Amino acid sequence: MPLANDAIAESAAEARRASQSLSKLSREARDRSLKSAAVAMLLRKDEILSANKKDLESGLTLVKEGRISRPMLDRLKLDAIKLAEISRMVESVASLEDPVGKVLLSIEMDEGLRLYKVTVPFGVVAAIFESRPDVLPQIASLCIKSGNSVILKGGSEAKESNRAIFRVMEESFIEAGLPKGCITLVEGRSAVEALLKLDGQVDLIVPRGGYDFVRYIQCNTRIPVLGHSSGLCHIYVDGSAEPDKAVEICHDARVQYPAACNSMKILLVDSSVSESLLPKIAVRLVESGVVIKGCEKTLEILGRNGIPAKHASEADWSTEYLELVLPTKVVSGVDEAIDHINRYGSKHTDSIISEDTANVRRFLTMVDSSTVMHNASTRFSDGYRYGLGAEVGISTNKVHARGPVGLEGLVTTKYILLGSGQVVSDYVGKCAKPFTHRKIVGSWEKWL
Amino acid sequence: MPLANDAIAESAAEARRASQSLSKLSREARDRSLKSAAVAMLLRKDEILSANKKDLESGLTLVKEGRISRPMLDRLKLDAIKLAEISRMVESVASLEDPVGKVLLSIEMDEGLRLYKVTVPFGVVAAIFESRPDVLPQIASLCIKSGNSVILKGGSEAKESNRAIFRVMEESFIEAGLPKGCITLVEGRSAVEALLKLDGQVDLIVPRGGYDFVRYIQCNTRIPVLGHSSGLCHIYVDGSAEPDKAVEICHDARVQYPAACNSMKILLVDSSVSESLLPKIAVRLVESGVVIKGCEKTLEILGRNGIPAKHASEADWSTEYLELVLPTKVVSGVDEAIDHINRYGSKHTDSIISEDTANVRRFLTMVDSSTVMHNASTRFSDGYRYGLGAEVGISTNKVHARGPVGLEGLVTTKYILLGSGQVVSDYVGKCAKPFTHRKIVGSWEKWL
Repeated sequence: MPLANDAIAESAAEARRASQSLSKLSREARDRSLKSAAVAMLLRKDEILSANKKDLESGLTLVKEGRISRPMLDRLKLDAIKLAEISRMVESVASLEDPVGKVLLSIEMDEGLRLYKVTVPFGVVAAIFESRPDVLPQIASLCIKSGNSVILKGGSEAKESNRAIFRVMEESFIEAGLPKGCITLVEGRSAVEALLKLDGQVDLIVPRGGYDFVRYIQCNTRIPVLGHSSGLCHIYVDGSAEPDKAVEICHDARVQYPAACNSMKILLVDSSVSESLLPKIAVRLVESGVVIKGCEKTLEILGRNGIPAKHASEADWSTEYLELVLPTKVVSGVDEAIDHINRYGSKHTDSIISEDTANVRRFLTMVDSSTVMHNASTRFSDGYRYGLGAEVGISTNKVHARGPVGLEGLVTTKYILLGSGQVVSDYVGKCAKPFTHRKIVGSWEKWL
Repeated sequence: MPLANDAIAESAAEARRASQSLSKLSREARDRSLKSAAVAMLLRKDEILSANKKDLESGLTLVKEGRISRPMLDRLKLDAIKLAEISRMVESVASLEDPVGKVLLSIEMDEGLRLYKVTVPFGVVAAIFESRPDVLPQIASLCIKSGNSVILKGGSEAKESNRAIFRVMEESFIEAGLPKGCITLVEGRSAVEALLKLDGQVDLIVPRGGYDFVRYIQCNTRIPVLGHSSGLCHIYVDGSAEPDKAVEICHDARVQYPAACNSMKILLVDSSVSESLLPKIAVRLVESGVVIKGCEKTLEILGRNGIPAKHASEADWSTEYLELVLPTKVVSGVDEAIDHINRYGSKHTDSIISEDTANVRRFLTMVDSSTVMHNASTRFSDGYRYGLGAEVGISTNKVHARGPVGLEGLVTTKYILLGSGQVVSDYVGKCAKPFTHRKIVGSWEKWL
């Protein structure tokens, strides 16, 4: 069961010990535990759904009191079909490629002295997430798959559901032979405060939630955070853009899922086509309910074409609207677009619509974002669509993992040097032995 | 010339603009600028050496006043031979493999929709280092090689030397066509304070120096830091160890370069061989001037053998002695050794001396350090010895780069998605087009 807050440091120490045991388990042992949790979720359906019902009842009160929104309550709801989907998801994580133990480099430094760089689990991962009950099983599965202990902190609205799913997973893991402490549930806002202070004990924090939530975590811990707070994605429509592509891509990127982190939040249009193309793009957007907030030039052009638009303020260029609002600016060309994006953007995903090779290359090279695109909707920026199998998160950090991140975001590397008694003093000074630095193949374990 | 402190934020903004221009320069352009700086250093030898002479004169006063040590003054000194070595080093960086533009992943998501993950420069790197004048040209070369702008802050004792070398490099770079602002020198302690606050402007900090220096930087910035503060490296001598290997490796690891971050700082010996082997290891160390600080058991055994030793306190297990002192502990076996290392160590480099396969595998798998070794001296943990070509630093972080880090530590990755008008709405819902996720080969640029 979940821990009292004062026990969190202790539980992190237990998670650390468990991670050491996890690190020597085989892939099969980790996968088996996930498969058994997937089955247990189906067998213990009633237990999970009745816990979820309690959350929904409390949630309804919160909706009536205006403390949570109706859509949020809807996202809380589990039923047999959704639970079966969750179970399948947990099972599918087991069948993903093993991210642990990959040999990234293997070199013979000298006879009988071999160096390997291999992927290893981080150790202890803390996941802090908002209220959807499918997040807990997803992140827990990804952590166990990658050989990490996981400490889970979910939103209070899903408390009962999280407890039930956690109980089923923990019991399945222990029965399948995973070490106690490999999965821990903590509760309450003070648990977050306690977790954020555990640098040295917790190796990585994976936050899932809105801007303010993630930003708070990023700003209040020394532990590395894998994720992003803001998705201020741009589309730049170049002078050479093919009109139909520009219209359709802008529409998809802003309208298809307005609240997504990878939806277009700011539109930039080259002045050479603003008269001809901007009205076409705008009409299609406005028809779908988008409110355009334009710069002076945009307002003038749209005004002349009878298309409604509001005035954009300076603050709009750095505001991430999660609803159908689109600050729009006419720029003098690709260079102004690049400067604007690098200055105001959140280094998430930015796209150029263009048929001019030089401009495309310039944009793709100089825009400093985790994904840069050509003639495609920013909405493609996603781990599943990128073929990563599972998405741990989308990172806008430049260290470790950047962009949509799969299981590789939950592993780090370790050098393993296998010797046969070598000392450095033989390799320095006047009679120094040379290093061979010859590439070799095969596993390090065969040399033991 | 170096900037006044109040101009540092402005100069970081210029470094950022320069990094955008750098990112579109070819490998040839970057290499050419390094080669021309290497030549200029030789041509302008007198200018550099006379600047160095000024530092040495001021340094002599500091030595007399007891404010710096004699060895530190010696490390400051440049002569024609050392300068030629520095010039060769700069030239050799030019000939290293290009770390930028490597394609790490390339996938066709659908017809005409291709995803690439490529290495790109970080952007702006700040290097903060102590007083040796060879550090500036080395780190500047590595940054330019990897397409990054670099902001350099050196120690005040090498002020004149740093100014002269910086001037030669900056002028060579600009003449060779690199953008102004690609290299910047700043001075004074307040410059460090200013740099540490520039998150968003500076992408990575590379500190070079002692424990307190690096620790201060790590604890006082939100910018990612590539490096390590402490090198509390262990050797564990297992019960199955071959005595000669154990004696020679322990001697090399402690004595060959006592102040190195990768030298052995703590010795752990299995109790089953402590009676027979520990005295042999200790005699060889003591003969070389090592002061052993032992646990109770160690003191008892060494005492019986007439080998001098002092008493180790609890604090010794987490103290990094840079001189010939060696806290030594008898442990009950490989598991206690692993626990001890994971508890007290600095996750740098730890080695097991053993002929028992199961114990070796256990140690290599469960010790959570950037390098784990078998039957080799911890002193091998080094970028040059590992064959990385150049060492940017040794990182004990788990994010980004871990262990000895070459040029790959100065690049990050970027996804490039090349489309032909695709929108996400075609790939969702009931009539969703499937993704092909087919591996492809070749450069992304050929599709523009």
